[in-house]
Amino acid sequence: MNDERPTPADYRWHRPFPTRWHDNDVFGHVNNTIYYAAMDTTVTSWLLGRAVGPQAGSDASRSDVAAVSWGYGMTDVQGDPAVVIASSCRYFASGAFPDTFLVGLRVDRVGTTSVSWGLGIFRESDEELLATGTFVHVFVDRVSRRPIPVPPAIRDRIGAELVADA
Amino acid sequence: MNDERPTPADYRWHRPFPTRWHDNDVFGHVNNTIYYAAMDTTVTSWLLGRAVGPQAGSDASRSDVAAVSWGYGMTDVQGDPAVVIASSCRYFASGAFPDTFLVGLRVDRVGTTSVSWGLGIFRESDEELLATGTFVHVFVDRVSRRPIPVPPAIRDRIGAELVADA
Amino acid sequence: MNDERPTPADYRWHRPFPTRWHDNDVFGHVNNTIYYAAMDTTVTSWLLGRAVGPQAGSDASRSDVAAVSWGYGMTDVQGDPAVVIASSCRYFASGAFPDTFLVGLRVDRVGTTSVSWGLGIFRESDEELLATGTFVHVFVDRVSRRPIPVPPAIRDRIGAELVADA
Amino acid sequence: MNDERPTPADYRWHRPFPTRWHDNDVFGHVNNTIYYAAMDTTVTSWLLGRAVGPQAGSDASRSDVAAVSWGYGMTDVQGDPAVVIASSCRYFASGAFPDTFLVGLRVDRVGTTSVSWGLGIFRESDEELLATGTFVHVFVDRVSRRPIPVPPAIRDRIGAELVADA
Repeated sequence: MNDERPTPADYRWHRPFPTRWHDNDVFGHVNNTIYYAAMDTTVTSWLLGRAVGPQAGSDASRSDVAAVSWGYGMTDVQGDPAVVIASSCRYFASGAFPDTFLVGLRVDRVGTTSVSWGLGIFRESDEELLATGTFVHVFVDRVSRRPIPVPPAIRDRIGAELVADA
Repeated sequence: MNDERPTPADYRWHRPFPTRWHDNDVFGHVNNTIYYAAMDTTVTSWLLGRAVGPQAGSDASRSDVAAVSWGYGMTDVQGDPAVVIASSCRYFASGAFPDTFLVGLRVDRVGTTSVSWGLGIFRESDEELLATGTFVHVFVDRVSRRPIPVPPAIRDRIGAELVADA
Repeated sequence: MNDERPTPADYRWHRPFPTRWHDNDVFGHVNNTIYYAAMDTTVTSWLLGRAVGPQAGSDASRSDVAAVSWGYGMTDVQGDPAVVIASSCRYFASGAFPDTFLVGLRVDRVGTTSVSWGLGIFRESDEELLATGTFVHVFVDRVSRRPIPVPPAIRDRIGAELVADA
Repeated sequence: MNDERPTPADYRWHRPFPTRWHDNDVFGHVNNTIYYAAMDTTVTSWLLGRAVGPQAGSDASRSDVAAVSWGYGMTDVQGDPAVVIASSCRYFASGAFPDTFLVGLRVDRVGTTSVSWGLGIFRESDEELLATGTFVHVFVDRVSRRPIPVPPAIRDRIGAELVADA
């Protein structure tokens, strides 16, 4: 572990994540697993791109195919899914309902078949750093479930929107 | 079951409830249990009253006593908790991530020791009715856990803010 | 609400539901929404019938189509889903992690297109009644999402295994 | 990341973790965040030690103080809590409801104020490795929330029950 203490400005894209009453555990703090829900929801929201919204919601309810395809920001509904192969979180301070988290997203590395996401979770009201985390996705063929190259449309959007030092 | 189809205007207080990626089940719809999380969070948010926000969050992280006491909108940190004794939900349409729900809250009945809440869950983007629900709370002594009268401060706030036909 | 206080013997089928650490809320009790997860999981487990197990798990990971089709206890992978249109719960006592719940299932009514499930949630160790609940499913065409008759295979299994006074 | 592929025998203590219907996401696989719930529940269960069971459940429902104190296997209800400062997970294969996970627990390192837990998550039916993970706890003073030495009773139980090469 290093001593990095990022600020929201260290991330290229941000999303609010309001806490829920039962996110709090017996100690009155947001349970450690909820930070992964915040990261999972933020990465997926970015993958859904412009499709985010009620229409996307309607599409999403049709099938996981449509759900994944938006991730590519394409009309291709045959899109292949991305599978999480690793994740991690470091906790710096405790959040508690009714806090809203501010989640920052960037991409630390794009490999041949994988994307390494970097996330920062802050208390929206005062931007105190609560946690930092990582997610590693591998894109796989929807039938064979074997790794495939990162879809060009995703690679392009990442370069344009999320690379830390872009 | 009756055929009531309320609109947001039929509720006195409203709160957005953004969905999370994993709220969706295998069918790509928000799982039926999440609607209860939306109702649980909305009723609690109202009980937290003006204390909602980062300060409340900090207080909440101290103890459930403080957490409950806000519900009374009082500085009394000896406040007694409210326990859910019944809940119900009727489902009219399916929501799906990334929908944001708009949750409406009213009070259908205030008894000697209980409060019956009425809730409506709508898709925020088009205000389509997704579900209606009920929650019944009984206030109990924090030590004996036996029913006690609805705290006057709560009864007063309900009359001022939430009674359907107030 | 009536004063019925069922025992496990009042249900035809039973399933243990171990609690998880974060099922507990700030009061150290299992949160009210978790009882719906217990009912949702129990009804689905029964619908999965004999397919429950690792093979079913493997099948389930393929698609929601296969997942639903087991519900019918058929090899037909074109099976139509059942949608929850109503649910309710009454709470009699508090459970807390590390309790294991014992969930009892019966069928209170089988309509043309719907099934009304009755559930009882007990603490497994001493069989104290914690809650009773209901779920109402309507079977729908997987494409049109319009109600269809309860599949004969489901109707037959219910009559043989779950009807309260069978 | 290394290529370690542990088996249940590589862990000193084991606990089943049955999946729930809504643990499955839109792809019909257990969502990545649920693996953290499995680890969180397993570490806590071990900390609760012999107190696990209905009595523990009853105690747990009283306060977080009692809940934590069992962790120490002591009657001291003034016990200090352990806070998660880091966690991680690597995913090797997908689980799916109705799988039951078998979670293995060991301790990789005991520091002055911290404990580093190592976990393995397997499908109980065939013991296929699904994921490996880590949790790092720091024990803190319940009032000042500042780090304190690992309680002797915990250190002793770890040495006796969980050290990998003990």
